[in-house]
Amino acid sequence: MVTAKARAVNGPDQSFRAAEIERRNLDVSDVLIEIKFAGICHSDIHTAHGEWGEVNYPLVPGHEIAGIVSEVGSEVTKYKVGDRVGVGCMVDSCGECENCQKGEEQYCLKGNIPTYAGVDKYGEPTQGGYSSHIVVTEDFVVRIPDNIELDAAAPLLCAGITTYSPLNHWNAGPGKKVAVVGMGGLGHVAVKIAHAMGAEVTVLSQTLNKKEDGLAFGAESYYATSDSETFEKLAGTFDLIINTVSAKIDINAYISLLALDGTLVNVGAPAEPLEVNAFSLIPHRRSFAGSMIGGIRETQEMLDFCAEHSIAPQIEVISADQIDEAYERVLASDVKYRFVIDNSTL
Amino acid sequence: MVTAKARAVNGPDQSFRAAEIERRNLDVSDVLIEIKFAGICHSDIHTAHGEWGEVNYPLVPGHEIAGIVSEVGSEVTKYKVGDRVGVGCMVDSCGECENCQKGEEQYCLKGNIPTYAGVDKYGEPTQGGYSSHIVVTEDFVVRIPDNIELDAAAPLLCAGITTYSPLNHWNAGPGKKVAVVGMGGLGHVAVKIAHAMGAEVTVLSQTLNKKEDGLAFGAESYYATSDSETFEKLAGTFDLIINTVSAKIDINAYISLLALDGTLVNVGAPAEPLEVNAFSLIPHRRSFAGSMIGGIRETQEMLDFCAEHSIAPQIEVISADQIDEAYERVLASDVKYRFVIDNSTL
Repeated sequence: MVTAKARAVNGPDQSFRAAEIERRNLDVSDVLIEIKFAGICHSDIHTAHGEWGEVNYPLVPGHEIAGIVSEVGSEVTKYKVGDRVGVGCMVDSCGECENCQKGEEQYCLKGNIPTYAGVDKYGEPTQGGYSSHIVVTEDFVVRIPDNIELDAAAPLLCAGITTYSPLNHWNAGPGKKVAVVGMGGLGHVAVKIAHAMGAEVTVLSQTLNKKEDGLAFGAESYYATSDSETFEKLAGTFDLIINTVSAKIDINAYISLLALDGTLVNVGAPAEPLEVNAFSLIPHRRSFAGSMIGGIRETQEMLDFCAEHSIAPQIEVISADQIDEAYERVLASDVKYRFVIDNSTL
Repeated sequence: MVTAKARAVNGPDQSFRAAEIERRNLDVSDVLIEIKFAGICHSDIHTAHGEWGEVNYPLVPGHEIAGIVSEVGSEVTKYKVGDRVGVGCMVDSCGECENCQKGEEQYCLKGNIPTYAGVDKYGEPTQGGYSSHIVVTEDFVVRIPDNIELDAAAPLLCAGITTYSPLNHWNAGPGKKVAVVGMGGLGHVAVKIAHAMGAEVTVLSQTLNKKEDGLAFGAESYYATSDSETFEKLAGTFDLIINTVSAKIDINAYISLLALDGTLVNVGAPAEPLEVNAFSLIPHRRSFAGSMIGGIRETQEMLDFCAEHSIAPQIEVISADQIDEAYERVLASDVKYRFVIDNSTL
């Protein structure tokens, strides 16, 4: 067993505290990773606060993990000690179902094993990236290209793949008009990726506060959704809308911005249902869809794409003692654009 | 002008009465059609009752029209007197917008001109198929193949194309599992078409009352949605679900029946919004979509497909005096499976 330093939370309304957790001994296909940086995702907050169902505390969140391989199991072939690697939102899946066989492990029919707040195949609770080490089977580890800094790489493992996958699946590219709703952790990466794919990108944000950044990230236009004229002006415009907002919004207003055969993809997951009017969809054969991270092969493809196009999230690196404060600031939308924990401070 | 016999309704709670309406003189590209049969669509009832917005009465409904060409304008090239032809839900569109240019006139950006309850390019109200004659520009007329009887052809012009188009667009075919929700006018045609396309078809109906018919139409299985076990048993099964039901249903329960990348397409249009849970869509990258009839080219393709595969709706032919009674029976789901008016009885 490896004893790892960690930051854990003991209940839905508790602060983070320093803790020690045990990581399993390496199985033959396992990789031990010394975690250098871990991003803070809004999901961490939902889960830590018990808002997404019952949680077994203590909980160590974190599924945007970047680090260095420090030991490998006897049958590991893909990685060696010293390699720069990442781990995202899942650490295992059945590997046998139809979806796993297609390389879409995120949609494993038996349920993938989440990086934290799950139960691994040994029956042990999984604990995430707010810790010094993690043990993961090599098939769920990805390689971080040399020209992406480890701290900036961390958020790509969730925010990056969550937006890359639907942009890729719904064919964002030259000649396509793509809107990104929300300019937060996911949204700002979505803008960069969609622009690099060759699409014409528009940001739809509550206000124009981050307009300068949005244009710098590659958007061609930037509209405030608080301005009702925005919806009149852009009616029937977009081939694809990526909605990164987890709050309940007037979804029909956004659907009305889709062109013929356009798709609005929710990657944010509001707790309440969204009231979709069939009359919003029918007149232009529009679709309202959902998408969840991406498979392991696609995650590697995303990292390679970001390296090729020099895409890195804009981050604010914090120490482990600042996690609680960072959570509050995420909830207040006061972050440009992703907090990343420096795990040397655990 | 041609004076046509018709059946019209004078207000939302009125009965049908015999009436005479004027059809315009033929423009150079117009075709005069002697209507032999007109199907009764649920939309006729919604519109006649004023449930889909304000209506200018008197109203002559009917957008499932089958008849014979009795006169042609001087520049008509596609049809000649005596041809067997049909007219569906629209009689014109701008012809110039992006969607019209793609042959998707139903999604005309300026709005297509509906067969009834619309206003034509001459500023006159359009009146539908419950009448002895209609004048339509030849581009919105389709040819009825010789081996489809005119009475059975009529419902194909709306029920047929409304189901053929999404089945075609979302690639129903060999290896695909397709469910049809509702075994009414649209549903029973959807089963026949999807089966002929090579898909494995399941019917989801409230009860098993029409099971024998469903299997005879080509379904491989038939489930009652009143049985909650149906939803457990079929979870994650279908690549495509065509929902023909216009009533508000528990849409998340149906979405849960979709496999990875599956799409549920609403062709029925409930007046109330449907509460879609993002968590229903996200875990299998599912889509909830809408679709409206089809373009003129696709409508012709559908008729030719039905002729090739000997597909005809199952109809009950009525006289013009029975329209009110037929409306009541449609509302009570007491029709197998489409009423068609014999227009010689007008």
